[in-house]
Amino acid sequence: MIIVLKPNATKADADELLELIESAGLKPLYMPGVERTVLGAIGDERLLGKIHIESHPLVEKVTPILTSFKMVSRELQRQDTVVDLGGAKIGGGNFTVIAGPCAVEAEEIMLATANAVKKSGAHGIRGGAYKPRSSPYSFQGLGLEGLKILNNVSNQTGLPAVTEVVEAGDVAQVEKYAHAFQIGARNMQNFRLLQAVGQSRKPVILKRGMAATADDLLMSAEYIVSEGNGNVILCERGIRTFETATRNTLDLNAIPYLKEKTHLPVVVDPSHGTGVRDYVAPMAKAAAACGADGLLIEVHANPKIAMSDGYQSLYPEQFDKLMDELALVVEAIGKKMT
Amino acid sequence: MIIVLKPNATKADADELLELIESAGLKPLYMPGVERTVLGAIGDERLLGKIHIESHPLVEKVTPILTSFKMVSRELQRQDTVVDLGGAKIGGGNFTVIAGPCAVEAEEIMLATANAVKKSGAHGIRGGAYKPRSSPYSFQGLGLEGLKILNNVSNQTGLPAVTEVVEAGDVAQVEKYAHAFQIGARNMQNFRLLQAVGQSRKPVILKRGMAATADDLLMSAEYIVSEGNGNVILCERGIRTFETATRNTLDLNAIPYLKEKTHLPVVVDPSHGTGVRDYVAPMAKAAAACGADGLLIEVHANPKIAMSDGYQSLYPEQFDKLMDELALVVEAIGKKMT
Amino acid sequence: MIIVLKPNATKADADELLELIESAGLKPLYMPGVERTVLGAIGDERLLGKIHIESHPLVEKVTPILTSFKMVSRELQRQDTVVDLGGAKIGGGNFTVIAGPCAVEAEEIMLATANAVKKSGAHGIRGGAYKPRSSPYSFQGLGLEGLKILNNVSNQTGLPAVTEVVEAGDVAQVEKYAHAFQIGARNMQNFRLLQAVGQSRKPVILKRGMAATADDLLMSAEYIVSEGNGNVILCERGIRTFETATRNTLDLNAIPYLKEKTHLPVVVDPSHGTGVRDYVAPMAKAAAACGADGLLIEVHANPKIAMSDGYQSLYPEQFDKLMDELALVVEAIGKKMT
Amino acid sequence: MIIVLKPNATKADADELLELIESAGLKPLYMPGVERTVLGAIGDERLLGKIHIESHPLVEKVTPILTSFKMVSRELQRQDTVVDLGGAKIGGGNFTVIAGPCAVEAEEIMLATANAVKKSGAHGIRGGAYKPRSSPYSFQGLGLEGLKILNNVSNQTGLPAVTEVVEAGDVAQVEKYAHAFQIGARNMQNFRLLQAVGQSRKPVILKRGMAATADDLLMSAEYIVSEGNGNVILCERGIRTFETATRNTLDLNAIPYLKEKTHLPVVVDPSHGTGVRDYVAPMAKAAAACGADGLLIEVHANPKIAMSDGYQSLYPEQFDKLMDELALVVEAIGKKMT
Repeated sequence: MIIVLKPNATKADADELLELIESAGLKPLYMPGVERTVLGAIGDERLLGKIHIESHPLVEKVTPILTSFKMVSRELQRQDTVVDLGGAKIGGGNFTVIAGPCAVEAEEIMLATANAVKKSGAHGIRGGAYKPRSSPYSFQGLGLEGLKILNNVSNQTGLPAVTEVVEAGDVAQVEKYAHAFQIGARNMQNFRLLQAVGQSRKPVILKRGMAATADDLLMSAEYIVSEGNGNVILCERGIRTFETATRNTLDLNAIPYLKEKTHLPVVVDPSHGTGVRDYVAPMAKAAAACGADGLLIEVHANPKIAMSDGYQSLYPEQFDKLMDELALVVEAIGKKMT
Repeated sequence: MIIVLKPNATKADADELLELIESAGLKPLYMPGVERTVLGAIGDERLLGKIHIESHPLVEKVTPILTSFKMVSRELQRQDTVVDLGGAKIGGGNFTVIAGPCAVEAEEIMLATANAVKKSGAHGIRGGAYKPRSSPYSFQGLGLEGLKILNNVSNQTGLPAVTEVVEAGDVAQVEKYAHAFQIGARNMQNFRLLQAVGQSRKPVILKRGMAATADDLLMSAEYIVSEGNGNVILCERGIRTFETATRNTLDLNAIPYLKEKTHLPVVVDPSHGTGVRDYVAPMAKAAAACGADGLLIEVHANPKIAMSDGYQSLYPEQFDKLMDELALVVEAIGKKMT
Repeated sequence: MIIVLKPNATKADADELLELIESAGLKPLYMPGVERTVLGAIGDERLLGKIHIESHPLVEKVTPILTSFKMVSRELQRQDTVVDLGGAKIGGGNFTVIAGPCAVEAEEIMLATANAVKKSGAHGIRGGAYKPRSSPYSFQGLGLEGLKILNNVSNQTGLPAVTEVVEAGDVAQVEKYAHAFQIGARNMQNFRLLQAVGQSRKPVILKRGMAATADDLLMSAEYIVSEGNGNVILCERGIRTFETATRNTLDLNAIPYLKEKTHLPVVVDPSHGTGVRDYVAPMAKAAAACGADGLLIEVHANPKIAMSDGYQSLYPEQFDKLMDELALVVEAIGKKMT
Repeated sequence: MIIVLKPNATKADADELLELIESAGLKPLYMPGVERTVLGAIGDERLLGKIHIESHPLVEKVTPILTSFKMVSRELQRQDTVVDLGGAKIGGGNFTVIAGPCAVEAEEIMLATANAVKKSGAHGIRGGAYKPRSSPYSFQGLGLEGLKILNNVSNQTGLPAVTEVVEAGDVAQVEKYAHAFQIGARNMQNFRLLQAVGQSRKPVILKRGMAATADDLLMSAEYIVSEGNGNVILCERGIRTFETATRNTLDLNAIPYLKEKTHLPVVVDPSHGTGVRDYVAPMAKAAAACGADGLLIEVHANPKIAMSDGYQSLYPEQFDKLMDELALVVEAIGKKMT
């Protein structure tokens, strides 16, 4: 850790801080300069959390040298983690596509959609039973009934199922009916929920929050992994910026960044990432081209009647065409999509 | 609601949509133009949620006329809501200051801080027992023990106490020890938690999320009020932008905006809003000057040893000076701070 | 145009505004509702600029139906514009790559770089003679000398040359030495400069500003085209967001959006878009995959000694490898890169 | 400057870099750690620009210790700069208000507005003759005729006049008719223009760009001051964020930040900063309360007919009321507004 002192800090101030650094078990370093004095703290700087050096009134700036995540870091584990999601492999050289409606609405629609996406080559299905909605007056999901529908459809089609969990108290129930948990963007820093899914051994798809940096996402993954569940899949789904032409700004730069920093698989949700049906296919291909390990994508047997996010759901025939096009890009990039 | 059709939409498409609008109980309106056809839906457009008109492939853009919040709206209730927080009034012509450390750490520090802020004229105390932290390796709060300390200090000083609640399951416990709940920025869209505090009758200070618009904040307040708890206090605490000179960008524009749109009181947290001790006082005064109903402010008997956010906590003597300066601004603005 | 009136607007207020709309040559429309009155203005709403309807104290919100750009719009011209940049075609089914150092530094380096990128298959070279730099103490470019070097190298290699112009007064000089102008992000709304290059007939690569929406970019292109120069190439190069892991946030969503709205070609600059050498290749491939018409990419014969932006410049061997990989993606997408 | 090396950097790499640092005239420092090696460069690190250390493939991160601005820094000059703008003092203990329409439209309106704001106590007038507009189809200002009107009105009322200059080539002309230049947000990084006004001795009001950090603003001021013109006034006018409730997000945090870092005066433009007439007065008072040295504010004798920005212009009677309210806040803060 690098500590820059304010211009008016004296040698005595520096000494006080150097002593603090040493007391935390780190090697202190003193670098007096012309305009500023700089201190260093060499060692596992995560220990410095204990001494709150940034609180000191004569400290101008503290710059960490090491990242604050550990277990998810590629420095700890060089090779890619490959997560087994009910038979579908995510990570390594695989490109994996999970498709389905935003919300589970009725068994017929869910089954029709699942059959369609299976035929087009999808590896898993998705559908929300618990829907976090900005308005208390919007459709909030079917709850337990939705979980059962999803489970039935998964059994009938053989496709593993992913569904969102919104509260620590629901984890046991959701675990019973789904092959993987999804943590939504709004709950990325609901730390109780992260700890709860961390105590499960089922895979967790962790979506990036709308105001979360890629490092914040890694810290949230660290919460889950540090509880003992290493089956975490990160998901880029767009961040909030000034641009209003699209619902969110899909930050694909985060893909090479995350793939460099972590061994966990990284997928992309181009449906929420754009919010516009016509842009889903191009951004799905872009995600594959820059190194994502797969996609989470909204498909609905009849988007016109979808109860949420219908304007961004693909029609089954659009999804089918996309899968053909994706296959070419995935091959060009040297991955496999089977 | 105003519905703009794509250029290639036909009269038949328009008729299909007009029928849908009528079926939802709204008055349909047809406005053919030179380059685009525009439809209108007159009435309580919240009903339109049922028909998902934006999902239609020939709809280019849907613009709501009415806001989606109702109960918190000033159109429903013209006069200011005044919330009674354990004797301290928030809203109306009052300017109310709640001060204390970021986290409850130890009874001596909490009591020293509470006595100091009381002497300077604060109306309530704050301190977190459950701390949501980005890193699993950071101090997470004392939990139940922290609640008891806070409660003891509140009893000894007579100052009402505010503390954060992070999960629906904790609401009953927190309610027992505190005079008001705080919902943190990361949980502003934890809808289960909003519903849970909505079923209490104790006041709720709802902080704006880092990527939440002022309208999103109002929708989250609507969740609480629609459960029956009208004692909601909104809190601006900074949003995330590209600027890194300060920890967050305090959006004071939101104060006159919110005061126009809602009857609920609005307070400001200049400590998180700036993240820099030296900027807390100027921004506290700015908050008062643009119409905020009060402040949530971090003060610590000894910020150098604070276990979280020490670099943004005021020293008791700084807080005392600020209260004197604030009194002048509050008077200039025509409010009262007693 | 849709005009929503404030709740307290009377019939008389509505009549005043309806008259204004009619006086501007548009068809007025009156839609009284339960909570709000809505007015419509049917016709070429760009005429409404004259009457400043949004200034009226009883107008709550004005929503345009039509976009404010005309000549660059795909509604005006369905088929893609193909720009001829000194022999290199940009747009249509072509994928075109322009490569070179950030700044022209010395003839040997420029020539070495140009020869290298030519061998790898680049279609044009780039290099700045006038460098807009945040600090007055940074290298500002070689000026006229740089233009001459660029011109010599272009003649020797046969690759057309693109270079930045920063002021209207320089347009004539730059035109003499280069095959195309580049307008940098900081000058995207330097309207005098846009008008000046609009009076030339040489192609203009117009970069998106850091805080500009895709629509703002189209409006700036409209400035150039409305002066008579239709040879405009749009360039996405990243916007400014809260994310600091990369220098900018490359907004690839803008590619399908712009390709839908305009007939002009759209290229991507993954060098500024990421600011990190290792992310340039993946994002270049993503740009190709989502429909971009080409790339503007920084390559330097020896990035270690580059005078600006060295950390984001590719080494010639990295560029060579990228061109091979790109060829596969471009083919997968159905375009040609010859 | 602190240089963190990548984990795979060897002692030889470190030595190469240490030699580079020494060759630039700085004192090199070597700090080997457990997971990373850190290097330091002690001295005037602005010299490091020459050696492009961040370009090195084994450098992970470079953190400057010193700011990159010098002449505008409060470390160079402790006491406030007080700028004389045609008799009006800006900076020090003064609170100075410059008011007028967005654009100069006609002499009668300009004169009526100037007389009104003078009566209410304004210290100067503003009005644009050259208007940078997003659309080529919007009113672009009266040009030279506008300058003459402004000059006449200034002479008749005795109020000094501020007007925008948009191109280096116009500086001489604008200087003839106005008491101060305004550089608009879109031109904050038009470095040629900054250099041109830097060669004048008339005051320059430099507005912050929509995507510019406070430090970027200081660097742009450094361009002007380093050309010899120290009469620079900084202006916060809102940045672009995801919030759409207001036209821009007024970043008042920047006021205490800038006042700490620079000796130059800092004013606020609450008209562009909010874009909503009703929020101008509260934000004007907030600006005064957090330490701004004055305001730039839009007032129009008849906003209903204003040719640009009418929806954010105050009516003369609103401005008059605001000046009375402001006087109380300015007094509470200990400044004077005469």
